Amino acid sequence: MPLVQITMLSGRTVEQKRKLAQRITDVMVEEARAQREAVVVTFQEVSKESYASGGVLIADKK
Amino acid sequence: MPLVQITMLSGRTVEQKRKLAQRITDVMVEEARAQREAVVVTFQEVSKESYASGGVLIADKK
Amino acid sequence: MPLVQITMLSGRTVEQKRKLAQRITDVMVEEARAQREAVVVTFQEVSKESYASGGVLIADKK
Amino acid sequence: MPLVQITMLSGRTVEQKRKLAQRITDVMVEEARAQREAVVVTFQEVSKESYASGGVLIADKK
Amino acid sequence: MPLVQITMLSGRTVEQKRKLAQRITDVMVEEARAQREAVVVTFQEVSKESYASGGVLIADKK
Amino acid sequence: MPLVQITMLSGRTVEQKRKLAQRITDVMVEEARAQREAVVVTFQEVSKESYASGGVLIADKK
Repeated sequence: MPLVQITMLSGRTVEQKRKLAQRITDVMVEEARAQREAVVVTFQEVSKESYASGGVLIADKK
Repeated sequence: MPLVQITMLSGRTVEQKRKLAQRITDVMVEEARAQREAVVVTFQEVSKESYASGGVLIADKK
Repeated sequence: MPLVQITMLSGRTVEQKRKLAQRITDVMVEEARAQREAVVVTFQEVSKESYASGGVLIADKK
Repeated sequence: MPLVQITMLSGRTVEQKRKLAQRITDVMVEEARAQREAVVVTFQEVSKESYASGGVLIADKK
Repeated sequence: MPLVQITMLSGRTVEQKRKLAQRITDVMVEEARAQREAVVVTFQEVSKESYASGGVLIADKK
Repeated sequence: MPLVQITMLSGRTVEQKRKLAQRITDVMVEEARAQREAVVVTFQEVSKESYASGGVLIADKK
């Protein structure tokens, strides 16, 4: 039943998201003994103007 | 004061979201005794490439 | 496949959460045409010291 | 290491988000003694059709 | 109407959360022109065993 | 910079969370080309009374 919600910068391909969903679900099954069909993975993609670390937008880092 | 955050596939109409917000707020008031004006409902819509269950993207399910 | 994540003050009974989960799932099925078994509802309960509106903790409101 | 996730109506400028990220990070450092470089701020912007309070979409309020 | 959801290690005092809620709400009003009474701030506190960076739990960092 | 937020039933051991954090971070680095030290993983653990699927609390399923 685990939910895995991933927030990351946009720009990843569908193939990357396919692999991420598959492999992270594998990990949840193997390590947390989750039922495979009950694992949900979502991607929330944000722009470089909507993500900051250390008080600085990614868009402003060089 | 409850927050109700809904993540779902994009494609619902404004009329559907209007009804969802209204009826879910009704439920929060009736069952959780929340104050109506304090209930917040948000919709985060994701594409079929950004949502997976059982390790498989919705876009890849037939 | 919708996820419904509810953040509310702690203190609701199990019976209240049972009713909330059931009725909100009904609404998702009826209005968003979600498949019943794919709707996930979670409750995150927070204390009055962990929730503020208008800049004031609920614990500090009279 | 705090994560600060902000959900707000879309329409703010990059300059507004820059200031928000900077000043909220300042507050986290000053009041919660967080390490500056470990503070992450994200913005999730939603439309007026995806945000409701009191059971009414913002798009429907006059 | 902004929601500000903060995930941080547990251990902060009520006084710290009071100040965080107050000052972050001030920032949202001043920089994002939010209405004060519509700003919601929540704290989700997690243990050192429930937070990792760089693949390592905070509990395991020295 | 990805955030990976996992909601699951409570009851996993620290060792399980250690492995989950480590392996999911590996996947984020290998498949999404994230910088290892920028990956944050959090666990939000909920009780069986705070998680429902198909409109039924996990606590009520046999």
